[in-house]
Amino acid sequence: MMRIDVSKAAQLLKEQDKIIIICHESPDGDTVGSGFSLGRALKKMGKKVKILCSDPFPKSLLFITENFENDEFENGYVVAVDVADNKLFGSKLEEYKEKTNLCIDHHQSNTEYAQNLLLRADAAAAAEVVYDVIKALGADISGDIAQGIYTALATDTGCFMFSNTSAHTHRLAAELIEAGVDFAAVNQRMFETKTPGRVAMEKMVYNDLEYYFDGQCAVICITQEMLAKADARTDELEGLASLPRQIEGVKVGITMKQQEDLESFKVSVRTTDEADASDICRLLGGGGHAKAAGCRVYGDVKQAKEQILEAVQSCLK
Amino acid sequence: MMRIDVSKAAQLLKEQDKIIIICHESPDGDTVGSGFSLGRALKKMGKKVKILCSDPFPKSLLFITENFENDEFENGYVVAVDVADNKLFGSKLEEYKEKTNLCIDHHQSNTEYAQNLLLRADAAAAAEVVYDVIKALGADISGDIAQGIYTALATDTGCFMFSNTSAHTHRLAAELIEAGVDFAAVNQRMFETKTPGRVAMEKMVYNDLEYYFDGQCAVICITQEMLAKADARTDELEGLASLPRQIEGVKVGITMKQQEDLESFKVSVRTTDEADASDICRLLGGGGHAKAAGCRVYGDVKQAKEQILEAVQSCLK
Repeated sequence: MMRIDVSKAAQLLKEQDKIIIICHESPDGDTVGSGFSLGRALKKMGKKVKILCSDPFPKSLLFITENFENDEFENGYVVAVDVADNKLFGSKLEEYKEKTNLCIDHHQSNTEYAQNLLLRADAAAAAEVVYDVIKALGADISGDIAQGIYTALATDTGCFMFSNTSAHTHRLAAELIEAGVDFAAVNQRMFETKTPGRVAMEKMVYNDLEYYFDGQCAVICITQEMLAKADARTDELEGLASLPRQIEGVKVGITMKQQEDLESFKVSVRTTDEADASDICRLLGGGGHAKAAGCRVYGDVKQAKEQILEAVQSCLK
Repeated sequence: MMRIDVSKAAQLLKEQDKIIIICHESPDGDTVGSGFSLGRALKKMGKKVKILCSDPFPKSLLFITENFENDEFENGYVVAVDVADNKLFGSKLEEYKEKTNLCIDHHQSNTEYAQNLLLRADAAAAAEVVYDVIKALGADISGDIAQGIYTALATDTGCFMFSNTSAHTHRLAAELIEAGVDFAAVNQRMFETKTPGRVAMEKMVYNDLEYYFDGQCAVICITQEMLAKADARTDELEGLASLPRQIEGVKVGITMKQQEDLESFKVSVRTTDEADASDICRLLGGGGHAKAAGCRVYGDVKQAKEQILEAVQSCLK
């Protein structure tokens, strides 16, 4: 593994004529926006490009993935974008796991699986790094390319809301807006569109929302029965886990998601400064960070809830 | 009325030693952030400052309004910020309506009621203009002053999501972040905190959500009974009107809000490009824009809904 900078990455890409770009499984706006913007830029330079992902690209990102034709070729130079660990290549791309020539990423936790690694851990999104690479390639950032980069930035920062946003992120957004990105349309698609399945889930979740310990703890429980009834896919649940903690006065927000075996729950815990999520999850055999942690709890809804609330109670100051 | 530029506005303020800043009624993040940042900057210059508003400042903006002491004085130089029309001074500030010396605003619709008007209609928030005025005053933008400006920008742009956001808005945000604003904390307060009353309202709204015309129209109805049951204030309903239109496939989103007389509803209509909100509202004696319009409908829930759906049906292509 060799750490490289932007100009070296651009140089390596210039030398290739067949390039395979890999997005991580359960693809999000950053891996897709980064992958397709890089891919389109390389195509403009006359290179043959394939973009691969173990999972289908989400319908919500169709505006980025449409009108892109994968070229036909066998072996190519393998570039992973926004992929912290080659485990995230997913089952369909096993064959590339040990063959990554270049990885462009922003995760501190990158496992350094690639031959060449361009890592900038202070970047809000991999797209911030990809943007610099595309510039270094001499391609101009406009049209679909600018739109993909903007979408990636907006996705990973919650539309510039989260603490990972930097002054640099905002200045990049300014340049992309000047390049003509219809950012309002992108944001409406990304942040202001709910599928009927999502709406049905939110309705059920609100109805089952429970408060404990004088409103210091809020719990939502997503059962397989609810998912079936709402006809909702897992990717339609994104962000629901943060809902309980958003309620004023709630110090510990719990989201329980029943697994398909019906015998266990994946539990995510979100807390304010007044409680430690990792302490709570450690008591239940899990772990994580002070404000966001997770664990798995076994039993039916009632049994699982009891175990969780016991752990919460012992950690509430 | 005289149109003036930033340096002239700064000069006028420098000449004063007693200044009264007026925020519009139903104060939002822009009028409050702009007013308090300007007020704090003027105080630092040794001037006596009072900030006035017909309505109490919302609890959600306490982090801006706290630790500011209004100075004691009788007559002062009257400055309105983000107030498009002196009607918006509200009942408690009638006395100042015809006495506005300076208005700093960004509304194209400004009624030019002030003696001197600094208007920049291309600004996403009045705070963009106030920022330039504070700079021209020679005060440095940091601490509370920077936080107030950031909060104002984030409020009026939906955290940089809406089409009124410009490249300039982003570059301003970059400078404010470099000035040390804890923007993530601001955004969590502004966008990721729900009061229990709001949560209770959302729950009821989801339960009553109705689809019509094969899911092309979604309707939510907020009754006085629901408001009482949820113990929710009107300012806790902000943004709810946009919910129905956010649902995938919905071309016309209707939000009905029962008035206190129990005999009429304020109706807001939000549409996609595939339907015209103003056409629908005109049929009901109201009006507005192509994508957002409003009207008042009389009768009980059932009667009101019938009238609205009839209008919607005749306007759906």
